Amino acid sequence: MKIAIYGYGNLGKGVECAVTAAPDAELIGIFTRRDPSAVTPHTPVPVYPAGDLPLYKDRIDVLILCGGSATDLPGMTPVLAEQFNVLDSFDTHASIPAHFARVDQAAKNSGHIALISAGWDPGMFSLNRLYASAILPDGCDYTFWGKGISQGHSDAIRRIKGVKDARQYTIPIREALDRVRAGENPVLSAGEKHLRECYVVAEEGADLARIENEIKTMPHYFDEYTTTVTFITEEELRRDHSGMPHGGSVIRTGRTGWNGEHKHTIEYQLNLDSNPEFTAGVLVAFARALDRMARRGVTGCLTVFDIAPADLSPLSPEELRAKML
Amino acid sequence: MKIAIYGYGNLGKGVECAVTAAPDAELIGIFTRRDPSAVTPHTPVPVYPAGDLPLYKDRIDVLILCGGSATDLPGMTPVLAEQFNVLDSFDTHASIPAHFARVDQAAKNSGHIALISAGWDPGMFSLNRLYASAILPDGCDYTFWGKGISQGHSDAIRRIKGVKDARQYTIPIREALDRVRAGENPVLSAGEKHLRECYVVAEEGADLARIENEIKTMPHYFDEYTTTVTFITEEELRRDHSGMPHGGSVIRTGRTGWNGEHKHTIEYQLNLDSNPEFTAGVLVAFARALDRMARRGVTGCLTVFDIAPADLSPLSPEELRAKML
Repeated sequence: MKIAIYGYGNLGKGVECAVTAAPDAELIGIFTRRDPSAVTPHTPVPVYPAGDLPLYKDRIDVLILCGGSATDLPGMTPVLAEQFNVLDSFDTHASIPAHFARVDQAAKNSGHIALISAGWDPGMFSLNRLYASAILPDGCDYTFWGKGISQGHSDAIRRIKGVKDARQYTIPIREALDRVRAGENPVLSAGEKHLRECYVVAEEGADLARIENEIKTMPHYFDEYTTTVTFITEEELRRDHSGMPHGGSVIRTGRTGWNGEHKHTIEYQLNLDSNPEFTAGVLVAFARALDRMARRGVTGCLTVFDIAPADLSPLSPEELRAKML
Repeated sequence: MKIAIYGYGNLGKGVECAVTAAPDAELIGIFTRRDPSAVTPHTPVPVYPAGDLPLYKDRIDVLILCGGSATDLPGMTPVLAEQFNVLDSFDTHASIPAHFARVDQAAKNSGHIALISAGWDPGMFSLNRLYASAILPDGCDYTFWGKGISQGHSDAIRRIKGVKDARQYTIPIREALDRVRAGENPVLSAGEKHLRECYVVAEEGADLARIENEIKTMPHYFDEYTTTVTFITEEELRRDHSGMPHGGSVIRTGRTGWNGEHKHTIEYQLNLDSNPEFTAGVLVAFARALDRMARRGVTGCLTVFDIAPADLSPLSPEELRAKML
């Protein structure tokens, strides 16, 4: 399958690496809204201006969109679904139904296939929520995130006056995780599930007490959580906090038996050194499925829920049954 | 959907409970090879002799086969796939390709749909092996089982002279699990992954030292493992070891990045109070998918790899996207 990447930020770089590693995929180009000469891919793949995309219409099996959910994808995915089979990692959960409707209409009208919200959450976590609730209908769901960098919370800190740079880690609270795993089915507020750990580089002479207070009292982002603020140097930030780790757990605890006497716990856990590179691995697997389904004539918008798992693997159905079942 | 159960052992009882709990399923009957009057279901559902099955051909959407893999299912599933949409939990991994071929031919010839090897291993564990290897192609797979009762090993102990009854727990070795979770990618022998804990009721006057020795040296079953043997009374066995717990973990550790510099761990973990009731929950979810796919005209044999997750849930695609994605 011939893959093209739209957007060359952290996710686009991860997709370049994942496509290169796939035995059955070829990266035919990277498309960017920046000046192509300012983009240097890791491999000798051509970089084209985004405006040239229509010229490559017949040479791209799946176009992987590596834009952001806030401002890029809501417009980008439906428009590009008019000319390409497209795949995105749209992750604004509340806006998924509206995004789906727009992309579905564009893809159906043009006879293309699209898949939105692939990645790990939404994505692999969503799949595990679905499987677990289908097989344990009487139960409770929990999702914990981290330890990992939250881009949104880091950005919120950077907007405070006197802050030069910042990283915010979301950390699941051990005691809450233990209670859930033990099948206690606790009712937990947001702040009872996660801590927020902030590493902040302040401008010279800035009022550190004021910055710390502004962070800890920031509505929605921090005020409901136990938050720690640690001031560090730019050097320390670069040295100790430049990675993009993430992860988390989806847990369902449920009961079976005529009197609900048997307890069961299903947990799906991720520990990721690189959030964008792992997400890229998910995208490339789902791009494979899209390419196969497009060849079978499927059109319209799908989600990870609509993909038979066998279509994600480069192995044949016979190999899968013999080796993995 | 109208469900019937074939076989009323532990799994059949679990399916009765799971079908009763499903919002969209109706249990129309239990079929048995025993004298129907000797079978007492928990609910007021009719019990029929297995030979009467053809009379109910048009009233059953999916027939769930609750026989054993060793002697029942290899003959039962292909024969019944000639008249019904069928679902089994065939779990002899090495024989799956041959079983698949027989069932596929029978189902295709008769225009029915069949699904083999549903449950948790094979089943949910298989799905997680597939998903994880597709998204992390450069990695290693590990499966740990337990703590849980192994029926095969318990039976093997019961065949020893002087043994009245026995239960064998398979227990994952903590240190091995920790090394795998830490991403060390260790090469582990069977005996380095699991312990075997045996609880044995001996006949009066039996030679306990001989029994213990025969267990610990039994080829394939115990000789390669650290095995403990504890003699207990019939009363203690009933009181402390009558449950059917099980579970385990499927773990994939992998690397991404141009130099494999980023490590990732994916773990799917089950802790089950009742192995047969959890398996039944899986079977009923896949029966729902089979019924839907049969109505779309799909025929032949499938496995869990061929089912789009959305088909497992009683929720509509719109509800799934809004609530679970």
